[in-house]
Amino acid sequence: MTGKGQIKVAVNGYGVIGKRVADAVAVQADMDLIGVADVVADWRARMPATKGFALYAADPERESAIQKAGLNLAGGLDDLLAAADIVIDCTPKKIAAQNVETYRDKGIRFIVHGGEKHSVTGHSFVAEANYETALGRDSTRVVSCNTTSIVRTLSALKRSGLLGSARGTLLRRATDPWESHLGGIMNTLVPEPEIPSHQGPDAQSVDPDLDVITMAVKVPQTLAHLHYWSVRMPRKASKDEVLDAFCASSRIALIRMSDGLGAINAVKEMMADLGRPNDSLYEVALWEDMLRVEGDELFYAYMVDNQAIVIPETIDAIRALTQAEPDGAASIARTNAALGVGAFAANTPTR
Amino acid sequence: MTGKGQIKVAVNGYGVIGKRVADAVAVQADMDLIGVADVVADWRARMPATKGFALYAADPERESAIQKAGLNLAGGLDDLLAAADIVIDCTPKKIAAQNVETYRDKGIRFIVHGGEKHSVTGHSFVAEANYETALGRDSTRVVSCNTTSIVRTLSALKRSGLLGSARGTLLRRATDPWESHLGGIMNTLVPEPEIPSHQGPDAQSVDPDLDVITMAVKVPQTLAHLHYWSVRMPRKASKDEVLDAFCASSRIALIRMSDGLGAINAVKEMMADLGRPNDSLYEVALWEDMLRVEGDELFYAYMVDNQAIVIPETIDAIRALTQAEPDGAASIARTNAALGVGAFAANTPTR
Repeated sequence: MTGKGQIKVAVNGYGVIGKRVADAVAVQADMDLIGVADVVADWRARMPATKGFALYAADPERESAIQKAGLNLAGGLDDLLAAADIVIDCTPKKIAAQNVETYRDKGIRFIVHGGEKHSVTGHSFVAEANYETALGRDSTRVVSCNTTSIVRTLSALKRSGLLGSARGTLLRRATDPWESHLGGIMNTLVPEPEIPSHQGPDAQSVDPDLDVITMAVKVPQTLAHLHYWSVRMPRKASKDEVLDAFCASSRIALIRMSDGLGAINAVKEMMADLGRPNDSLYEVALWEDMLRVEGDELFYAYMVDNQAIVIPETIDAIRALTQAEPDGAASIARTNAALGVGAFAANTPTR
Repeated sequence: MTGKGQIKVAVNGYGVIGKRVADAVAVQADMDLIGVADVVADWRARMPATKGFALYAADPERESAIQKAGLNLAGGLDDLLAAADIVIDCTPKKIAAQNVETYRDKGIRFIVHGGEKHSVTGHSFVAEANYETALGRDSTRVVSCNTTSIVRTLSALKRSGLLGSARGTLLRRATDPWESHLGGIMNTLVPEPEIPSHQGPDAQSVDPDLDVITMAVKVPQTLAHLHYWSVRMPRKASKDEVLDAFCASSRIALIRMSDGLGAINAVKEMMADLGRPNDSLYEVALWEDMLRVEGDELFYAYMVDNQAIVIPETIDAIRALTQAEPDGAASIARTNAALGVGAFAANTPTR
């Protein structure tokens, strides 16, 4: 049932990102999930019904296959878009580009994800960095997982006057767990062919002032990305000052090696034990005890759940585009509360 | 047969490093491999005979087990040491510490590897950096694989006046191929708990002037380490100047993504196709086309075969301690020629 003044949200594409977006929309007090659209007819298409989500056929040619599988269709993509205030596109790269034309033709607000170029919407979004500039826009792009983490962390340093230049090495998971039977890499390391890798320039699409250069390498595991950073600060600072800067972001969660969180699989297991849907880690999980300050230099590492980190940003982007909430901080607080963001963090460190 | 004036070399420990050292000693015109000592009695103990190497029991208590396995023993460790000018210790960490006492008692020159502390010998060795300071010493430590690669590359930049400060992220292979059934890590990443990791300070045991800080993470593969570096140069330089600096080292081999060498497994396959024993990559394999210069900053990545990179250094250390060759460059050239070091490198780049 749709409440009065609620934001009516459609999710197009019920894959790795789409299903997490749908779950997250469903628990926001000010949003209604109108339905989800997809093209598959196998077990994945049966999942929305188990959560009470209406299923739409994203492509008319797939309707009969989905119905033959015994699934109830609420309609086609046109029906879904007609009923919604905004659509979150979570389809694969090439499909998304076509969808954008459809959304524009129908005059519906839309959000795309980091697979698309900045130019597709002319605006790239990370809630803590530029929520206000998205207010009332027709569309925005929630940047990729890696870029989101870079903007969250470097923006936090910047707001505290601790950011000079940042140089990062990104260890990228080879493929998602769900797709690891379809091909990944095994027992090797595959460097990105070019330095800088694309994530640094992509972060500058959100904040052009960031002095950031990234290098990236694909590693044979499926759980998450891991970033190592070497930052020059404009002045000498203490470790406490740096930790305070990171703690000022509600989406950076400090974790500790000494707390048994000595590897990325342990952090994922904690997410499962917290009962989060799909074990999602929405935060940048940054190791407090590993972080090192040497004069005006800062070194740290953090983990990025590539499937989950953009979910809270997407929720905030919905409120910004629909102008349901003019204040970024207020939207972030509501999203965080609904998703439990930061609940496990050691952000009141015993230091 | 032992030639006149030949250096008589004993290898204690016929494991991952020891067997490669033995192969390398055997092909040096100025060295004779007296024999190898070990404690195992399984298939590994049958390998020396296939190469014509005499086998000694490294521990008297293991003699009967080795003989029961049908293997010919040339004697015990004492016999081996008595016949040698120098012993290369390739035993595991704790055993090596005990062995050092034995070597000292017997007054035989010895070389330990990077598992031991600098203080064990008071000298840490990388041929291109400090061959001459090892001349005539009783002992030296050939530093670890990662440290060897760091000293080779940063020394090369330093000799060309291009080294300011160097900050590196090291992706460490989880375990050796031969031991991967005994336990490694799977589908995760395990950060070293502390920043800086030990390799930076270890490089300073060879050259205290190096301004180097390292971070390290264990990755789920067995082939090799991979390093990513971000270097501040004392001045702006061109990419050509940097490549020239690296090319001046005969033990840094430039490779290219564009040549099909897009991952560490491809480089290992090339070593196999070159017919190198155990597919050994003795060089630092540094990607020429990935390397990037931005003003006074330099970014690059290279591969380190942890089982092989120290082998040529060990050969040179033998000549230095025994004073068989007073000139480091001459020793390096002889070692390189015997092992084929650099034979595959794109060190005359088409740039």
